[in-house]
Order: sequence, then C-alpha cells, then structure tokens
Amino acid sequence: MKFNIALLAGDGIGPEVINEAVKVSDAIAKKFNHEITWTPALTGACAIDAVGVPYPDETHEICMAADAVLFGAIGHPKYDNDPSAPVRPEQGLLLMRKKLGLFANVRPTFTFPSLIDNSPLKRERIEGTDLVFLRELTGGIYFGEKGRRDGGETAFDNCVYTRAEVQRLAKKGFELAMTRSKKLCCVDKANVLETSRLWRETVQAMEKEYPEVTVSYEFVDAVAMRLVQWPNSYDVLITENLFGDILTDEASVISGSMGLMPSASVGEHTSLYEPIHGSYPQATGLNIANPLATILSAAMMFEDAFGLKEEAEAIRTVVNKSLEQGFVTEDLAAKGAKTYKTSEVGDWLVANL
Amino acid sequence: MKFNIALLAGDGIGPEVINEAVKVSDAIAKKFNHEITWTPALTGACAIDAVGVPYPDETHEICMAADAVLFGAIGHPKYDNDPSAPVRPEQGLLLMRKKLGLFANVRPTFTFPSLIDNSPLKRERIEGTDLVFLRELTGGIYFGEKGRRDGGETAFDNCVYTRAEVQRLAKKGFELAMTRSKKLCCVDKANVLETSRLWRETVQAMEKEYPEVTVSYEFVDAVAMRLVQWPNSYDVLITENLFGDILTDEASVISGSMGLMPSASVGEHTSLYEPIHGSYPQATGLNIANPLATILSAAMMFEDAFGLKEEAEAIRTVVNKSLEQGFVTEDLAAKGAKTYKTSEVGDWLVANL
Ligand SMILES: CC(C)[C@H](C(=O)O)[C@@H](O)C(=O)O
Ligand SMILES: CC(C)[C@H](C(=O)O)[C@@H](O)C(=O)O
Repeated sequence: MKFNIALLAGDGIGPEVINEAVKVSDAIAKKFNHEITWTPALTGACAIDAVGVPYPDETHEICMAADAVLFGAIGHPKYDNDPSAPVRPEQGLLLMRKKLGLFANVRPTFTFPSLIDNSPLKRERIEGTDLVFLRELTGGIYFGEKGRRDGGETAFDNCVYTRAEVQRLAKKGFELAMTRSKKLCCVDKANVLETSRLWRETVQAMEKEYPEVTVSYEFVDAVAMRLVQWPNSYDVLITENLFGDILTDEASVISGSMGLMPSASVGEHTSLYEPIHGSYPQATGLNIANPLATILSAAMMFEDAFGLKEEAEAIRTVVNKSLEQGFVTEDLAAKGAKTYKTSEVGDWLVANL
Repeated sequence: MKFNIALLAGDGIGPEVINEAVKVSDAIAKKFNHEITWTPALTGACAIDAVGVPYPDETHEICMAADAVLFGAIGHPKYDNDPSAPVRPEQGLLLMRKKLGLFANVRPTFTFPSLIDNSPLKRERIEGTDLVFLRELTGGIYFGEKGRRDGGETAFDNCVYTRAEVQRLAKKGFELAMTRSKKLCCVDKANVLETSRLWRETVQAMEKEYPEVTVSYEFVDAVAMRLVQWPNSYDVLITENLFGDILTDEASVISGSMGLMPSASVGEHTSLYEPIHGSYPQATGLNIANPLATILSAAMMFEDAFGLKEEAEAIRTVVNKSLEQGFVTEDLAAKGAKTYKTSEVGDWLVANL
C-alpha cells in the first residue's frame, strides 16, 4: 500500500522524537512492502516564528491531503507566561482540531510489566490497568462563545453540545467497547449540568443499539477518585472535552509510563497521532528524549488509520523488547544502568524489527 | 461563650455521625465552659419526604440565625437514577450554598501517620502531604444560565465569574497562605477559558498586597497529574467551582484517609462544617459509620467559626489518640483487630477528652 503522511514535528524535542518514528515506520514499510511519502509542515511556536501563526493554511492543506498526520509536540517557554497573549502555540492546536474535525481523542492508559514500579500507585492498585478514554475534542466550553462584559469585570465561557456531537463520539465509544470487554462508562456531571444531561440521555438512548455493551454512568468527581483508587476497574470511558482534558492527564500519570503513552485524534477528514508528552524544551537538541511514545503513536496509526494490525504489532513487540533488554533512554533506565540516546534507541529498534 | 448551632443531620448515616459530633462538642463545651444550643433542621432526601423540597425555608431561617451550621450528609438511592428528576437532594445543597452565600469551600487533605498505608499511593509519595483547597462554591458553571435550544437538540451551560467573586475567594486564599507556608497555587485553564484569564489577572493584581506570599499559576490538567505524583509539593490551592469539585475529590482519596477528612464552607452570613464523605445509605442505622470526619469538622468549627483554638486542639488530640490505640470503627480497624460501633467511638472520645 501507499501512504501519504503529514509530518508535524513541532517544537522542542518534537523533531527528535518524530525522526525516530519516521525511521521505524520506514523500516516497517520496507519490511511489509508499503510506500510512505512524508510531507513535513510547520505548527506551533516554530510556525509562529516562521510565518506568524501557529497553524498556517499551508499546513492545514497538507494535513487535509494526507492519509494521516504524525505529530510531535508543541510549546515553547517564551509563550508560557502570558496565557492571554494574542498568538500562542496552543491556539494552533485548537484551530487544527477544529478545522480537521478531530472530534475523538483516543487516550489509552496501560502498564508495561517492566515499568510498573515507576507508578506512584502501589503495585496492587495499578497492575492490570488497561483503559481507554475517548475525549470529545471539538466542542464544549473550549469552543463556545467566550468574552467579557461590564467593562471587563465579568468574564464568561459558554459550554454547548448538540445531540449529534454526542452521538458521534458515543458511537466510537460503543464500537470500541465491542472490540474490548464490552464495558462503557459515560462520565458526566448530570446532577448539575444541562449539557451533561444531554450526554446522558443521548447515550442512554443508544444503549439498545448495542445490547451487548454494559454502560455505566458516573459523575466526573467520582471518576477522578476511582481512577486513583481502582484504575483497573475501568475499560472504555467517554466524556466531554474539558472533563476529558483533566481526567486523561490524571490517568496518564497513574501507570508510571507517561513518557510512553501514545494517542490518536480521530476526525472526519483525517486522523492525527501523537505522544501525550509535551515539547520538553529543556531537552531540545540533546538527543536524550524518549522516542517510544511517538513510535507507539505510529503503531496506532498503522493499525487504526491504515488497518495494518500486523505492522502495528511488530512495532509494539520490538518496543517491548527494548524495554525488557533495557535499551532505553535515561528517563527509563534502571539506576546505574547504561543509557542510550534518542537516535540510538531508534536505530536499535530498526535493527531488531 | 454561648453558641447557637444549626444541626442539619441529613440522610443515611448523617444522623448517626452527627450524633457523635454533638456528644463530643457538648463535652468540649462543658470542659471549657461554653454553652451550645443545637437547633435541628431538615435537609436532603428527608426534607423532600417531609415537606416536598430539599432545603425548606424554615431550615434556611434556622441556618441564617445560627452562629454556625453542622452538617451530616445527604443523598438517598431512590434519587440516584435520574439526574434530571425535578426534585433531588443535591438541589438542596446548591440552593443552600447560594442562599447562605457559602462562597469558599475549605477542603484540607492531610495524612495520619497511623493510616498512611491505607493510601493507594506509595508511602514516599504521600508522606508529609498537608494541603488545602479553597474551592469557589457559589459561582461558575454551576449557577450560570443553562438550558436547551433547537427543540432540545442543543444544550448549554454558561460559566460566569465577576472580578469581585474572584477577589473574595482569592483574599481567603492569600490569608490562609499567610498562616501556613506562604505558598499559594492558583489553578485555572487560562490557556483556553476567558473566566480563567479573569481569575489569573485578578490574582496577579492582588499579589502586591501580599508580598510575602509566593504565588504559582498552574493549569487544571497539570494539577490533576501532580496531585498524584507529588501531592506534598502543594500547600494552599485556590480554584473555581467545577475544577474544585473534581480536584478536591481527587485529593481526598490520595491520603487514604478519606473517611476522616473534614471540610468547611465559609460564607457571608454563616459557615457550614461537614465531613466530605457521603450518606453511605447501605450503612444506615447499623451504628457502624465512622464519625471521625464529622467530629473533626466540629473541631474546624470551634477553631474557625468561634476562634477557639484550644478546644479544637483538644478534639484533634483525642481523635489521634483513638486512632493510635485502635479504638475505631470497622473501616479503620487493622485486620483481625476488635472494632467499635459509631456510638462507642463517640463515648470513648468523650471519656478520654
Ligand atoms: C494545550 C491545551 C489547549 C490542550 C487542551 O486543553 O486540550 C492540552 O492540555 C491537551 O490536552 O491537549
Ligand atoms: C452533589 C453535587 C452537586 C456536589 C457538587 O458538585 O458540588 C458534590 O459533588 C460536592 O462536591 O459537594
């Protein structure tokens, strides 16, 4: 098969980790007889520096024309101090999500047996955890009307959802649950919010189309607790944009393998794959960043965007091997063990595929 | 001194735990020569059953006339299934907060040395944790305009804050920080929300009035992570209503002592003290509920509402003694150890004051 992949390396360590993901993807393509064309494009702080906006039209066109987007990370400290500054890298992220219609953010949290002791949670709490959040990504309070009144003394943000938006996300949730253990948790705040009541009634109405799926409804505050107490009691969770922002980040730290977690943002026009970690500016250019989350995001891309399960498994297998053999960057190395550079890890993976 | 305390026992185990808090408070009053008048009033499911509404006007008048309110817990399973039902116990809670102007919810999270191994977190992560959230409680998306459009197909919730509301809460935060380690963290989502930008700029402008306080600004998703990773890096945190709902519940489980955490809701007209646990309907009437969170809430009331530090310390000291000596309810007992009834714990505390 032939694929055209938009390559958005972004800022900080983005280019370095993306580089390794390209290496590994190319090696997979060679091995399985596919042909990948990579089309690089600017986004984030580097796009602001180059052309004044964080998500240029040209980048958007490249993404729209691609079969998938592979994304590194964005953000630069020079934009960190003033969240109300007119041009910021994150605005590019939000614009990109909206313009590409990336409505479903897929955020798995799972454990690697060899890394389980990195978790802040006790082993018996985290062992066996394997959950996936589907976070709605193009609606809610992120994109509702916002502004000031009363000469700036009053601020407002509007949270809006339509039934169709909820259905679209929930459908993905039910479908994902069908491929897993058939358990779906709808996270809302239906005891307070009208948008949550719309979420709940919409999901309730869809239950009969998926009679095999057991659906539970939990309040967001209760989920924030149970994620720390009994994370392995969850499987697929669906939720709105802001709750998803908070809970997926909370979920990402419980496994102790945050630096390895991949993610996907699935859309109408295309889908985007990215590590959940940030642009880690302090490490820029040092060739020390851990590329595995980006490489595992490429595996998700092969499986979900291109339907190539075997290729994805090949990547996951060799990543597991590198973890078991300790061929890892310094963040993952055991005390006193030899550590490897970002590019060395990529080379090793290619050699061991 | 003479105090008039409104007594809102509520539902489920509420009356049982309140009963023990009254016992202990009366014993303290006797010992320190105070006179307490308790005025019981209905709220929650029991109020709906009795008079059709969860926060009757009579209850409101009793609270308004009181020097403080001691609250048990509300909620009953018969109201759990349909969050859109027209009359629900939680509506009483929201109405009470609004009508009493209880704008600052004070939620400490700390550890008890003897219970630290109950935490889902590893000992080295949780040890030394002693933080306090101040959650804004009468504004934000909880109380903004909400409803449906397009024949019910679109739902909306409005989040609104005024500068004065932020100042009122932040002032409490700065003052509290001055009595502790002079560290204040403002939790917001200023990279996305206009209300958060108002929060941040308002707190920034107040910094110069409290030059000794070091203020940090963190995004809500980052705090949801760090609370699990390094909870003891926080001291005083201030935040808006919905973020506070999620984060205070997350914080409550990390210590492993959720059943012991007290809270206060501080208002313009009066202040309310309550355990953070729920009404635990399954345990109703069994005399097994742990009364310590309610008793520690009474201690907060003595200290914060009446300025009686010594009285509060006397309560905390005897509670610690009961923990150390294992004179506790079944939820806290070591494996195989003798357990005590709710009322036995109260009696023991009174006898050992
Ligand atoms: C940077 C920010 C706007 C963004 C969000 O809130 O969605 C980030 O936290 C994320 O989760 O991708
Ligand atoms: C019951 C509910 C309305 C309430 C809230 O969301 O404020 C509760 O979760 C709390 O935190 O006291």
